[in-house]
Amino acid sequence: MNQVIETILDHRSVRSFQDRKLSREQVETIVRSAQSASTSSFIQAYTIIGVTDQEKKDKLAEVVGNQPYVANNGHFFVFCADLNRIAVSAAMENKDVTPALQSTEKFMVSLIDAALAAQNAAIAAESMDLGICYIGGIRNQLEDVQQILKTPEYVIPLFGLAVGYPAKINDQKPRLPLEHVYMENEYQQDEDVFKRQLEDYNQIISTYYKERTAGKREDTWTGQMVDMLGQKARMYMKDFVQKQKMDLR
Amino acid sequence: MNQVIETILDHRSVRSFQDRKLSREQVETIVRSAQSASTSSFIQAYTIIGVTDQEKKDKLAEVVGNQPYVANNGHFFVFCADLNRIAVSAAMENKDVTPALQSTEKFMVSLIDAALAAQNAAIAAESMDLGICYIGGIRNQLEDVQQILKTPEYVIPLFGLAVGYPAKINDQKPRLPLEHVYMENEYQQDEDVFKRQLEDYNQIISTYYKERTAGKREDTWTGQMVDMLGQKARMYMKDFVQKQKMDLR
Repeated sequence: MNQVIETILDHRSVRSFQDRKLSREQVETIVRSAQSASTSSFIQAYTIIGVTDQEKKDKLAEVVGNQPYVANNGHFFVFCADLNRIAVSAAMENKDVTPALQSTEKFMVSLIDAALAAQNAAIAAESMDLGICYIGGIRNQLEDVQQILKTPEYVIPLFGLAVGYPAKINDQKPRLPLEHVYMENEYQQDEDVFKRQLEDYNQIISTYYKERTAGKREDTWTGQMVDMLGQKARMYMKDFVQKQKMDLR
Repeated sequence: MNQVIETILDHRSVRSFQDRKLSREQVETIVRSAQSASTSSFIQAYTIIGVTDQEKKDKLAEVVGNQPYVANNGHFFVFCADLNRIAVSAAMENKDVTPALQSTEKFMVSLIDAALAAQNAAIAAESMDLGICYIGGIRNQLEDVQQILKTPEYVIPLFGLAVGYPAKINDQKPRLPLEHVYMENEYQQDEDVFKRQLEDYNQIISTYYKERTAGKREDTWTGQMVDMLGQKARMYMKDFVQKQKMDLR
């Protein structure tokens, strides 16, 4: 196993950082790494906002639901899906590309591009012995996030990435069985097999939680997922995205 | 610079592969690397389909618009956004989570999760001296892709990832200027600065194309992007996604 794969397989989210800032060089290395990712037809449909202003970081920490590691870390990045750059390009070229800009397809492209870039940033940071944590919680209140970061139309802040020197290292949670996530030639057609794999995984997760809580936490993966999705979180998202003029057609 | 960052920064897409298959061990290392990526609230909302059947690969190569490297490579992966696993979990738990399943928010989660996993797979492959190419072209005709891979509702094939031993190494295309993609504390509010950065980048890209075509190709980045988006490609996407019951509310 090479150093790259070791870094990738050793990933765990870090939610407690030392009081030590990243250097400008570290930040630039992380951003350049993000930019090296593949991008759909060269569109580079994302923007990365580094939040260094402590007041803004404190506000963001509040908005995401009081996560102190959003305020206290070595550097806080926000990855945004960005088609505004294309809207500006269209104005510069004096052409109308509104239908494509507002399409579900280009909305998808901007999300995928931003996520590919972010994962490069995450791996680059981890290779420098930094810890990372993705912050999906910024999608709790995107109107507020948008005001804090002053993002224009055709831009959607997708998630934060807190980076820093780890103060505490967490365990890795076992992932779904490989044979459940990876299929060959066609999607699993046998629902019994599919369910049995989930039941096996439930056992693994149940044991994992029990061992870490002295038997107190009784939970399975399917149970946890269904409870979470039962909460109907962030149901304002469609309106928000469409107000940004994306995913309209 | 460490080996991980070197691997990341050295990325270029490979579109011509040697006639040599990946080993089972290589495929599993790539999939495990994908699975090690962060995932929103542990949902792991993706499935990876490895296409080894040559007939299916040939069909896919045709569907994406005759790209021979989709048929001829060391291994071909298709990354799918997958909420079907949650739909099955809900049936197992006897609960209704339809509103969340069909939400724009969870559609976004599944795209981001799939892309984070894919980029780990890409980096892992590249670290093993393999080349990779993302194939967004599978979104040209998703009805066909869906039939080939037999994907159910709540699943959307997003892109392919062709992996293999490179037969030809391409140049790297210069990315947008770092200061244009990376902003601090707020989005660039000065449109003149924003446009000037794009004009500077146009110069870089124009020179890049000229040098590689003995002066024949005259193109800028904004010109290329606006031409591409003027074509209104894949405008059926919204219907397709919603037929899969995703991004509905």
